[in-house]
Amino acid sequence: MTALVFVDSASPAGRIADPQQPQLSVLDQGVTRGDGIFETAHYRAGAVRKLDAHLSRMQASAAALEIKLPSEEALRGAVDTAVAEFLKDYDDAAQATLEAAVKIVVTRGGEDADHGVAWVMVSALSASLLEQREKGIDVILLDRGYDSTVADRAPWLLMGAKTLSYAVNMAALRHAHHQGADDVIFTSTDGLVLEGPTSSVLIASTVDGVKTLTTPILETGILPGTTQGAIFAAAEKAGWDLGYGPLEPHHLMEADAVWLVSSVRLLAPINSIDGTKISRDAELHRDLQELVDQIM
Amino acid sequence: MTALVFVDSASPAGRIADPQQPQLSVLDQGVTRGDGIFETAHYRAGAVRKLDAHLSRMQASAAALEIKLPSEEALRGAVDTAVAEFLKDYDDAAQATLEAAVKIVVTRGGEDADHGVAWVMVSALSASLLEQREKGIDVILLDRGYDSTVADRAPWLLMGAKTLSYAVNMAALRHAHHQGADDVIFTSTDGLVLEGPTSSVLIASTVDGVKTLTTPILETGILPGTTQGAIFAAAEKAGWDLGYGPLEPHHLMEADAVWLVSSVRLLAPINSIDGTKISRDAELHRDLQELVDQIM
Repeated sequence: MTALVFVDSASPAGRIADPQQPQLSVLDQGVTRGDGIFETAHYRAGAVRKLDAHLSRMQASAAALEIKLPSEEALRGAVDTAVAEFLKDYDDAAQATLEAAVKIVVTRGGEDADHGVAWVMVSALSASLLEQREKGIDVILLDRGYDSTVADRAPWLLMGAKTLSYAVNMAALRHAHHQGADDVIFTSTDGLVLEGPTSSVLIASTVDGVKTLTTPILETGILPGTTQGAIFAAAEKAGWDLGYGPLEPHHLMEADAVWLVSSVRLLAPINSIDGTKISRDAELHRDLQELVDQIM
Repeated sequence: MTALVFVDSASPAGRIADPQQPQLSVLDQGVTRGDGIFETAHYRAGAVRKLDAHLSRMQASAAALEIKLPSEEALRGAVDTAVAEFLKDYDDAAQATLEAAVKIVVTRGGEDADHGVAWVMVSALSASLLEQREKGIDVILLDRGYDSTVADRAPWLLMGAKTLSYAVNMAALRHAHHQGADDVIFTSTDGLVLEGPTSSVLIASTVDGVKTLTTPILETGILPGTTQGAIFAAAEKAGWDLGYGPLEPHHLMEADAVWLVSSVRLLAPINSIDGTKISRDAELHRDLQELVDQIM
């Protein structure tokens, strides 16, 4: 089932714990204020993929929130232990194809605490998530309420930091589900495409035989996607043209293919946006899938 | 110290627990997504003040987030038990003047859970908070990133719901402290005064001998303040004129007195905004203080 390991100063490998038992204090501001940060990485075939990028983004989030991180060694030690603990339930044959979500959380701690609590949780992927990779998803556009210049002028809004305060992201997903959709693409008040509640937006087109991959510009205040970043690095080596927005909804409608990309679900091809069918160029999807498979 | 009582279906009075011990699961989305709601009420002189208003607002928050609340009886039972538990540490003389913060929290629970966890925590007030009632506070204006019409058009942003996702509110307060200020008043992108990260804004003036109390309009997406509401009800009976914004920063600068009001700190008179001294009409403050004292 789910494996849980706390970062623990007494042990470089962390402390294994039972996720079914109470483990956290009600005094931790991670609990009472959503005041903490997290990353979710992908385990596959013996390795946690792009862990460097996740730990690097977690450092940026910690800096934005002024949260003290455990040492990188301690975080890596807890990740290794949690993965090993998770794998115990599977035989060698199962392990060869096993995938899992590796969630790393660091909280602020109590009001007067010098540091918070950090843990790693490894769990199996849901069937519905795996299905979305194949079947694709229907999305709706939702107003994020912010204009695209807010991140620069209002750093206290923590744009681009991955905090535990995800209530709005979850509410947007519920709103989509009530509309019969699977997911959301947020837009800015000035009409730009931003990101999904838990993913980045990627569009592709073939122009004069050249494959082009485009994603919204980071300056809009979106989270720098580790999967988007890794795909771009692989695509550049493979000779694709790369572009950064500003993207507007019509760019998505006109593209040859559009995806929501994230660390665990990977490529979720978009079938429709606000009920309008979206192109799903099979060749572009296959090519991008190959690039995603290469991510270490 | 702090008293902790969980709502528990096995006992109408709740289950007393030790806040220093681990009590929560890492699987609860209240922890991992800031996906829960809360209220903070004021205990004084034998009673939790305006508990009805807090429970009523908690119901509105629960509806916005589609979170299942325990029964009102169960919540009230846990509040009573937590207060009694808190008082045990004090003798009768101390209890007569004792004040405390009564925090009620309800989380969404685990991914597949039918309901989350609910608890009540009663704790003493910090000296710095009590001091702010007397000395007053210096505040800065910070852009909240939203325009004043967002609540109506984007309900998924959960404006007006009191969620556990408070990372931005806490970041704004840290930003103020770094600037040497005590607190924040958020403004909308279209220039309206909104609220503090944990309080409502109230301004007063005496015009032709009539005392007038004004607060920003709720349609801007601010939280409906239970203290502001109770003060308005008392002021109306006392013959004050009442007004609802839209308020702009210049209205604050021109008022005879400005406060941040909240359930536990009560009236925090504002000494300066962005470094500009603000009027503190002593008579208005005394009159308003009397109204606040009447709140049950």
